[in-house]
Amino acid sequence: MTTSELQLATTSAATLSTSSTMKALVYHGPGKRAWEDKPRPAIMDPGDAIVRITTSTICGTDLHILKGDLPVVTDGRILGHEGIGVVEQVGNGVSEFHVGDKVIISCITACLKCDFCKRGMYSHCLRGGWILGCTIDGTQAEYVRIPQADGSLHIFPAGGDEEALVMLSDILPTGFECGVLDGQVKPGDAVAIVGAGPVGLAVLLTAQFYSPAAIFMIDLDDKRLAVAKKFGATTLINSADGQAAHRVIELTEGAGVDVAIEAVGIPTTFDICQAIVAAGGRIANVGVHGKPVELHMEKLWDRNISLTTRLVDTVTTPMLLKVVRSGKLQPSKLVTHRFAMNDIMKAYDTFGNAALEGALKVVLTNSGPR
Amino acid sequence: MTTSELQLATTSAATLSTSSTMKALVYHGPGKRAWEDKPRPAIMDPGDAIVRITTSTICGTDLHILKGDLPVVTDGRILGHEGIGVVEQVGNGVSEFHVGDKVIISCITACLKCDFCKRGMYSHCLRGGWILGCTIDGTQAEYVRIPQADGSLHIFPAGGDEEALVMLSDILPTGFECGVLDGQVKPGDAVAIVGAGPVGLAVLLTAQFYSPAAIFMIDLDDKRLAVAKKFGATTLINSADGQAAHRVIELTEGAGVDVAIEAVGIPTTFDICQAIVAAGGRIANVGVHGKPVELHMEKLWDRNISLTTRLVDTVTTPMLLKVVRSGKLQPSKLVTHRFAMNDIMKAYDTFGNAALEGALKVVLTNSGPR
Amino acid sequence: MTTSELQLATTSAATLSTSSTMKALVYHGPGKRAWEDKPRPAIMDPGDAIVRITTSTICGTDLHILKGDLPVVTDGRILGHEGIGVVEQVGNGVSEFHVGDKVIISCITACLKCDFCKRGMYSHCLRGGWILGCTIDGTQAEYVRIPQADGSLHIFPAGGDEEALVMLSDILPTGFECGVLDGQVKPGDAVAIVGAGPVGLAVLLTAQFYSPAAIFMIDLDDKRLAVAKKFGATTLINSADGQAAHRVIELTEGAGVDVAIEAVGIPTTFDICQAIVAAGGRIANVGVHGKPVELHMEKLWDRNISLTTRLVDTVTTPMLLKVVRSGKLQPSKLVTHRFAMNDIMKAYDTFGNAALEGALKVVLTNSGPR
Amino acid sequence: MTTSELQLATTSAATLSTSSTMKALVYHGPGKRAWEDKPRPAIMDPGDAIVRITTSTICGTDLHILKGDLPVVTDGRILGHEGIGVVEQVGNGVSEFHVGDKVIISCITACLKCDFCKRGMYSHCLRGGWILGCTIDGTQAEYVRIPQADGSLHIFPAGGDEEALVMLSDILPTGFECGVLDGQVKPGDAVAIVGAGPVGLAVLLTAQFYSPAAIFMIDLDDKRLAVAKKFGATTLINSADGQAAHRVIELTEGAGVDVAIEAVGIPTTFDICQAIVAAGGRIANVGVHGKPVELHMEKLWDRNISLTTRLVDTVTTPMLLKVVRSGKLQPSKLVTHRFAMNDIMKAYDTFGNAALEGALKVVLTNSGPR
Repeated sequence: MTTSELQLATTSAATLSTSSTMKALVYHGPGKRAWEDKPRPAIMDPGDAIVRITTSTICGTDLHILKGDLPVVTDGRILGHEGIGVVEQVGNGVSEFHVGDKVIISCITACLKCDFCKRGMYSHCLRGGWILGCTIDGTQAEYVRIPQADGSLHIFPAGGDEEALVMLSDILPTGFECGVLDGQVKPGDAVAIVGAGPVGLAVLLTAQFYSPAAIFMIDLDDKRLAVAKKFGATTLINSADGQAAHRVIELTEGAGVDVAIEAVGIPTTFDICQAIVAAGGRIANVGVHGKPVELHMEKLWDRNISLTTRLVDTVTTPMLLKVVRSGKLQPSKLVTHRFAMNDIMKAYDTFGNAALEGALKVVLTNSGPR
Repeated sequence: MTTSELQLATTSAATLSTSSTMKALVYHGPGKRAWEDKPRPAIMDPGDAIVRITTSTICGTDLHILKGDLPVVTDGRILGHEGIGVVEQVGNGVSEFHVGDKVIISCITACLKCDFCKRGMYSHCLRGGWILGCTIDGTQAEYVRIPQADGSLHIFPAGGDEEALVMLSDILPTGFECGVLDGQVKPGDAVAIVGAGPVGLAVLLTAQFYSPAAIFMIDLDDKRLAVAKKFGATTLINSADGQAAHRVIELTEGAGVDVAIEAVGIPTTFDICQAIVAAGGRIANVGVHGKPVELHMEKLWDRNISLTTRLVDTVTTPMLLKVVRSGKLQPSKLVTHRFAMNDIMKAYDTFGNAALEGALKVVLTNSGPR
Repeated sequence: MTTSELQLATTSAATLSTSSTMKALVYHGPGKRAWEDKPRPAIMDPGDAIVRITTSTICGTDLHILKGDLPVVTDGRILGHEGIGVVEQVGNGVSEFHVGDKVIISCITACLKCDFCKRGMYSHCLRGGWILGCTIDGTQAEYVRIPQADGSLHIFPAGGDEEALVMLSDILPTGFECGVLDGQVKPGDAVAIVGAGPVGLAVLLTAQFYSPAAIFMIDLDDKRLAVAKKFGATTLINSADGQAAHRVIELTEGAGVDVAIEAVGIPTTFDICQAIVAAGGRIANVGVHGKPVELHMEKLWDRNISLTTRLVDTVTTPMLLKVVRSGKLQPSKLVTHRFAMNDIMKAYDTFGNAALEGALKVVLTNSGPR
Repeated sequence: MTTSELQLATTSAATLSTSSTMKALVYHGPGKRAWEDKPRPAIMDPGDAIVRITTSTICGTDLHILKGDLPVVTDGRILGHEGIGVVEQVGNGVSEFHVGDKVIISCITACLKCDFCKRGMYSHCLRGGWILGCTIDGTQAEYVRIPQADGSLHIFPAGGDEEALVMLSDILPTGFECGVLDGQVKPGDAVAIVGAGPVGLAVLLTAQFYSPAAIFMIDLDDKRLAVAKKFGATTLINSADGQAAHRVIELTEGAGVDVAIEAVGIPTTFDICQAIVAAGGRIANVGVHGKPVELHMEKLWDRNISLTTRLVDTVTTPMLLKVVRSGKLQPSKLVTHRFAMNDIMKAYDTFGNAALEGALKVVLTNSGPR
């Protein structure tokens, strides 16, 4: 597409600021990040939208990137895959969103047209999936370009709360789809969630949509467990003594749990899950794993269990929005700290010391159009 | 229950032979088996039935027992968990079967009353499960006691073929439930079955109920693969060169298969399954595993797959009977050798050298009431 | 079975009263009922249990019987299909219950052995289904004989509340299975319940297991609607003006509801359901219908809806018990009136004037063994 | 969009004929149709494609339109919603298809972006649904404009057979989705299909994907029943004597069928379905109804049945393509007559006298680019 075509492909936006730079949080290789000037993004494809970010947040995955764990993320990349903002420009292939719309940005980009998207597996979209703040520039900035905008944005509901709804970019659909839906939580179930970090807590909040009878929350950190209690966990288990699995089996009178949800991503926590799942139960993996685990097929082969893995598809975001609007889910509970976007370097420090700081989700707010 | 109560608890059977002994295949510790005299079984509980065996067969699991792999099976046990026969006696708690009924014996004993049975998980019945020829005497004999008869027998259909229908005792429901149902085979799917032994072939036969577009059959033995071809496999892959996974990926243009079914029970074959499952696909385990496997969660965590394990529940036997009777499934295809029950020692020799003998299922026939 | 066999078939019960009569509520043809002496029931089959009733209640169906609407119920029949009690005697085919066990009586009798029971369709059990207080004597008495006891009773949980748990005999599983499960209520759904009588309110209570975003409650009676409000309905609609469907369509901005649940059983309320179901939605029928309805296939054929009917199977009673015990469901909310069993004639008067009396469920209590 | 924008919005096509008119089958009010000159269609929106038709066919719905039954279809409309062709031009919002691609045209237009499309309910697409040959010009012409091309076309597989695959435009997904999927046909089921016209036969062909044990085919026309026999029906029932329901009940020993599929669209055939559905069974409606039916809720309320309605979504076309390519489905069996597109007036005469002519599907072939 030529430059002139691109100009034609964009809807003119009277409110568009004339400045051509913006501030953004940029990754510069392992351990290095900076809040610095970057060119403001522009429409590159008819399906693109340019969104002015009003609220964003930091994900545990951003910390992984900063450690250098994801080589696919390269020097110069703007981080962030969560955000709320206002549409500033749309390509002429965008039909669902218009300049001025307030939107929730999904962490998953979906073209809606490929075989995976048609099957509801946006996570594996042939043109998208998780690319934002990973292989293309992300949302921890003043502006972001959202490709495949029609499949990757959601209208922000009138009267909504930005810091609550930014949790719908990633963490709530992740907890709900990978943990609760794949785990098939049912009324009366005994559920164990291994890991009381933000995503484990998102599992906890959304598991309650289905009225399980018991939710065991397992973590090493008593402060996080205390939060879990407030969020609805029925039993807290500190796994520091290595007896967590044993305790769950005891508490369930030898049966184990109907659903064991792994929300950490290491062999130790995975092991707890396979030790506590009841015959006929489900293990739903949410955690991001860096190495293989040992699966005890010699014990599990005749236990009639299922194990699922999933990268979030964000197909349930419309459903989650309805539940939030009905008041049955209060995602703002997850927010512990608030910063101006300009203070994002400090926000990263806080979030990077989550245990010490008692941090769950750290909300970042842009003050408005420059 | 006292002896006099037991007498009252049994329906008198005019046809019952007066002899009090019978011949049976008895396990005498690792490597030792004998066809010898044993007391004829008697009703011990109101739910029992005594069945005179007309047809039985040998399962790969029987060979495992003989190797000493299952310490739960002890010296003196009559082996066998598959069979067709005629009801000779029933306890007074039996309502579905009567003296003279020809029946198919299910390898799984189900009380129908415990929580697991009520959920359709007969495999984990608190009073049964797999006990026949394991913790109680089995079917490789002239008579067998079937506890919980109402949940553990099926009426043999008029005009049915015994050697075909004895495959409904274990192998066909095992292949169908653990492989096909748990693998959720759908029309148009690409399916891979790893292992072309009897149970892998049972998966192959029953997978075709759902019209998959492609069935890749993977085994080390070209003779078994040739059988698979006749049974409906669309592509044969000899895995001797270690390239089976590579070939499946190539043949599916990089996508992998919708369903990978493990029908062997060792790490090597499990590895093939995890290497070839497509994003969004299912691994269904059928094989009996003796040790842990390495599960590549570092590759699978974001692939949206499911992995299932299952001991057969035999809940689908009524469905399978209907399909057999409609002519859409011909289980007798699995039968390669036939012996008189009296020659069961030879039958074991043949089945024990399955590769050499080209043996799949070996049918044993009792000549009639003594 | 001879008398002597029957004696052997019963477990002796030291606590069994020697009196051979009891009081019971007996139907004597349309409009006629009496609290009168009847012979105390005895074991007739090895699967029977005799239960001393401690708590019972009256169902709308009992009123139908009294009107003569169910010719299958004949003169002399003891009414009632709901109750809590203590097992006094069991036949020798009963394995799950023992003398002295406190039990919840299911309104549906299930042999667990027939094809329907094996499929979880207890309502159509070939030996049971709804027979209690219908074709065999029922629970509005001091004692009742429960056939197929292993499939028809549930252990009363230690520390449970009788007047809460008697709601698990019928009304809660009916609302849950026929309305909520068949209607496939999902988080975020808009649900309409037509009829705020006891069963409609049971739907309302159990629908909330799945966190719908909106529940429209539709009835002619403002008092019942006020109760529905307390029970969690989000919108109340009095249908007296014939505008209920119109209002639902308006409130859903033309879309209609995801799930419309019919809990009355007449053409007018059925019509509301078919008028308000959204494209892709479900109509779940709970009401007992006496005549045909006009189904607008000329409007519905291309609307991608489903319509379900169901007689309760009571297969979810174990699940409901778990939810009650977790505190997430408080069935005692449904109880508005309490009577001694001896005052059951008055209780019927009250329940028969439910609108006037503001009656929902009327609990009857036996004072203890005579 | 201005004319100049539209020019930019289209990809230039060197092969595009310069002629600006084409021949098309045009509706001119009830009873009137003509094969006449019409302007060749042009891109109107970035999502459009212009397809040169190589193969088309006539649907029963086209006859309904000609009778004047669908007032939404107005004078001057080009009919037809089925076809195979070659892409001649695409708007710049089209990403999945390119000039020169051979494509299957879906009868349903899907934007993929609206709520209904995201839920897989293309039939209710807010920008599409069934519009082709209805509210916009259709496929019985030399060229057709396909809006929302990315959601409404499928790549024609290399080596495919046009007259077989044109059955994937409408009739096969209709039979499969509305009849077989909604009816949940399972292995071993007894299925009845009421109506052996083209769509009933499409149900028959695709029901066999799931290996039912018995398929009862019910129609008034023995010739069509004879075709059904060849297509796999196991029992033929001519319903002319009004005894069809009676016979099905007899043949199923009083049980009725697991699935009853209505493929006509009138009260009489709907009645057969409600009379023959087994307890626990499903009625799946495929037929287009013009008036209400009487639903016997007084008999069905306690029968645990489901009834579904559906306008085809064409979401299963990719699955059907895989099954066709595997050889397990031969749609060309449905083709009885072939005409050059120029002879479409004769083709309509033949199809309009289907019973007399023994016509099922009538294939129309364009000879090539003019």
